[in-house]
Order: sequence, then C-alpha cells, then structure tokens
Amino acid sequence: MTLDVFSQYARNRVDLYLHQNLHQYAPAKALQEAMFYSLFNGGKRIRPMLTYATASLFSDVNNLTDASAAALESIHAYSLIHDDLPAMDDDDLRRGKPTCHIQYDEATAILAGDALQTFAFELLSNNELQQPTTQLSLIQELAKASGRHGMVTGQMIDLSNVGKNLDIQALEQMHLHKTGALIRASVRMGAISTGMRDQKVFDALDTYANAIGLAFQVQDDIIDITSDTETLGKQQFSDEDADKPTYPKLLGLEGAQKLAQQLNDQAINAISPFGDSAKPLVELANYIIGRNH
Amino acid sequence: MTLDVFSQYARNRVDLYLHQNLHQYAPAKALQEAMFYSLFNGGKRIRPMLTYATASLFSDVNNLTDASAAALESIHAYSLIHDDLPAMDDDDLRRGKPTCHIQYDEATAILAGDALQTFAFELLSNNELQQPTTQLSLIQELAKASGRHGMVTGQMIDLSNVGKNLDIQALEQMHLHKTGALIRASVRMGAISTGMRDQKVFDALDTYANAIGLAFQVQDDIIDITSDTETLGKQQFSDEDADKPTYPKLLGLEGAQKLAQQLNDQAINAISPFGDSAKPLVELANYIIGRNH
Repeated sequence: MTLDVFSQYARNRVDLYLHQNLHQYAPAKALQEAMFYSLFNGGKRIRPMLTYATASLFSDVNNLTDASAAALESIHAYSLIHDDLPAMDDDDLRRGKPTCHIQYDEATAILAGDALQTFAFELLSNNELQQPTTQLSLIQELAKASGRHGMVTGQMIDLSNVGKNLDIQALEQMHLHKTGALIRASVRMGAISTGMRDQKVFDALDTYANAIGLAFQVQDDIIDITSDTETLGKQQFSDEDADKPTYPKLLGLEGAQKLAQQLNDQAINAISPFGDSAKPLVELANYIIGRNH
Repeated sequence: MTLDVFSQYARNRVDLYLHQNLHQYAPAKALQEAMFYSLFNGGKRIRPMLTYATASLFSDVNNLTDASAAALESIHAYSLIHDDLPAMDDDDLRRGKPTCHIQYDEATAILAGDALQTFAFELLSNNELQQPTTQLSLIQELAKASGRHGMVTGQMIDLSNVGKNLDIQALEQMHLHKTGALIRASVRMGAISTGMRDQKVFDALDTYANAIGLAFQVQDDIIDITSDTETLGKQQFSDEDADKPTYPKLLGLEGAQKLAQQLNDQAINAISPFGDSAKPLVELANYIIGRNH
C-alpha cells in the first residue's frame, strides 16, 4: 500500500467512525456544527494514520483501533481550536479556512473545544466496545498524553517561552510535551488496541514516535520560513512574527534540516525489527520531513 | 450525622484524594498552580457531598467513590474557569476571590480548565483502582453528563439565550443541561461506585437529582436579587445586568420561591423509600433551598 492509499484508508475509516458516533442531538445543534467544522476541516489525519499503521504491525485493526483513532483526532481538533484563540496564538486561519472562533465566535470555540475533549473520552468508554480492561488502558494513555503530563503542559511552556532565548534542550522538552505526547499516544494506542502488552515493543515504538514527533516540529519550523502563505494555509513567518524560539533560529536552516534527517533515521531504525509490515510507518516518517505544508 | 459534619467529612475526603492524585510534575508547575487555585477556592463541594451521600445508601463508600467525587469536582472547577472567561460570562469575582483569568491570565485559565477536564478522566482511569468494568461505567456517565449531551450544551444554550424571552420549559431545558446533568451524574456515580445496577433505584435517584438540580438554579436566581454582593461573593444582580432569563423574572419572586419548595418536596419524596439512610440527601435538598449564597 502506498502512503497515498494508506492515508485515504485511514481517513475514510476514522471519518466514518466519527460520523457514526457524533450522533445528532437536537439541543446541541449549534455546538455540534462547530465541532464538525473543526473535526472535518481537511486535517492530514496523521495521528489516525499512526494508530492504524501501528495496529497493523500486530494484527488486523479492530473497532478499538477505530475508537482510538477517532478519540486522538478529537483531542487534536480541540487543542487546535483552543490554541488558535485570541488569548493563545491568536490565529485567524487554519488550513486556509477561518479558525473556529472567527467562523463562529470565541465562546462557541471554547465550548466546541471542551466538548471535543469530552467526546474523545466518550468514544473510548462506549460500552458497545465490550473490552473494559483494554478500553481503560486506552483512556489512561490518552489522559496522560493530553493533560498536565503532556499536551496542555507543552502549550503552557510554549506560551511562556515567547520572546525568550531557549537552548535546544528546552525547545525539545517543550515539543515532546506539546505535540510529542499525543503522537506517542497515537502509536501506543494503536498497539494497545490489538492487545499488545510487550514492554520491549513499546520501547521501540516510543523511540520511533519521539523521533518523528520532534522531526515533525523541526520540519514545521523549517516550512514556516521556506513555504509561502498559500502553500501553508496559514500566515508565513507566523513563528518569526510571534517571536517564538525555533530550530532554524537555534541551528540555522541547514542545521535544522540535518537534525530532521537524523531524527528520521533514528525513527526508521527503531522500527526496523518489525520488517516489511512497518512500511507504512517508514513512509509516514519520510513524509513528515518531506512535506512543505 | 448533621449536614455540617457530613459536609466536613465529604470535603476532607475529596480534598485529600485530590491532593494525593494531583502529584507534582515539574514541567507543569505554573499550570498546576492555576489548577490548584481553582480546585481549592472554598467551593461548597455539593457534588462530592451528593456522591458520598448516595454511595452510603448502598454500602460503605470506597476508593471508586473518592475517585468519582474528585473527578466531578475537577469537571465542575474546569467549567467555572471557562464560564468566567471574558468571552463567556466575563466574571472577575468567584466566591469573593479573583477568577482564574484575573489571578493569572486568560491563556493560563483556558489551559487550566482544559487540564482539569483531562484530570477527571485520568482519575477515573487510574489502574490502581482495579475495577475496569465499574471504572468504565463511571467514565461513561461523566462523559455523557459533562459533554455535548449535558453541561457544555447547557452553557451553549445559556449564552444563546441572553436578551431572549424564554418560557419556563426552555429555561428548565437549559438548566437540566447546564447544571442538572452534572448533579445527576454526582448522584448516579455515587451509586455506580458501590456496584449498584438496579434500574428502579436509578430512576428514583434521577428524580431526586433533577429536582434538586432545578431547585438549586431557582434558588440561585432568587438569591441573585435578595442577597447583597458581600454575602454572594460575586456581583449582586449579575443575572439582571447580563439580561439573562431567570425564574423570578418569569414567575415573580413569590412564584419562584413556591417552585423551589415544590421541587424540594418532589426530591425528598423520591428518596423516601431509602428511609433513614437517605437523611444526608434530605438535608442536602433542604440546604439547597435554604441557602443565601
């Protein structure tokens, strides 16, 4: 399966699952419209791709894999809505479209984000899945990755860093929380959804996930200065303008590109024991540093 | 046990459990400070009281009851932080103290609210509790009550109602979501935490919870016009100022007081089959319509 085909497969599966589970509920009409707007705005579905690709290392993907992918994408969508708010990054555009608080209003955006977070835990606790122990492990994994041990703390560190001179370790620490934790959870939850419990497997997956998570950020910083606004779907130089620490600022453009490549090698090396079945994960790693938006 | 003693008991238990579980995590220092500020700001702990009082109808309270009470209080604290934001109710004072975004800043308040929501699900999915099936039921209950089927939708309806003429049914619909859903979950989770599964018991508990939830709101509307700012710990007439629909506006002050009393009777009647063991729940119902702040 080429990456394009796999990407389409993951998108179709997760989108179908999200649609099937975000049932109409009459009193919540306006809220759900905003939730839909942000969930289905042309996102790349990288986290679901990671979840499905990892699950398929160990067995056929199942409905726990679907629930995991959908929950991860809901958490990701909520985090983007809140990150874009005026009090946070104050972004008007996301993937070429108005951000949630521009399309609706700030109050609706805050609440749609809140409800998307809850929706993630609603999906994973659905008793139709009928695997309480595994479901609980998935919920635990997601809560740790997205809360004060992970994503939210990363965003907090990010905001407190504006205008500061960070060293490379502090920048890495921030990214390992802000985006790394959820990427790691995407990979781990894929494995957990198939019943995998081998600690050595999780160690290899963590190494892969941490490397691609950082590579993703390094590449993000690179394309912020090398791609134009139209390609990006958001303002070019938005990190520069916000006076945020970035890898190219610390290492130069060439140094940042070299680091992205090293991280890519590290990621691919970590999953080499899985052989051919890891091909989608390898292609995903290559895609992450090859992309220009 | 008098209500004062029971209230102290519930507060001590839930506060201890929250302290024990909100471990220090170095990178999250600033975030945790804001989470603590809002969790321990002198709130009345009504939801934990309901959880403990309901659990004790059926057996001794256990660590699932503690986790439920703590999770409910975390969700409540997160909702207050977000409700107080400038884009929402724009309140500067809560229980006589600066609201979270005034004490810190808006970004920190948004993130502290987000992290408190996640913390609730982290608490309930803790594998040290070792009761996956019951834990999953508790998570499901909380997700349904606090997300788009409950609290968040209630807040959405509330915001869209400012300046509108609502009838009594529409006002009730709003409150049954905004505060009613979490109060109902507080009671139901108390029962679930003890292993209770009898549908007839849940029906009686739902009737009790819906009645006190509405009574709480009716009383809130009443004291907004009958208590002064110092007693309230927030601005008197804040509902009037915000041009929000209230029970006294629809029914007159006397009509609202009569409704509160009817709801109180209905609540106490619903739990009368539980006899003497329901005394804390009866006293709680009486407290709710007797309070002046």
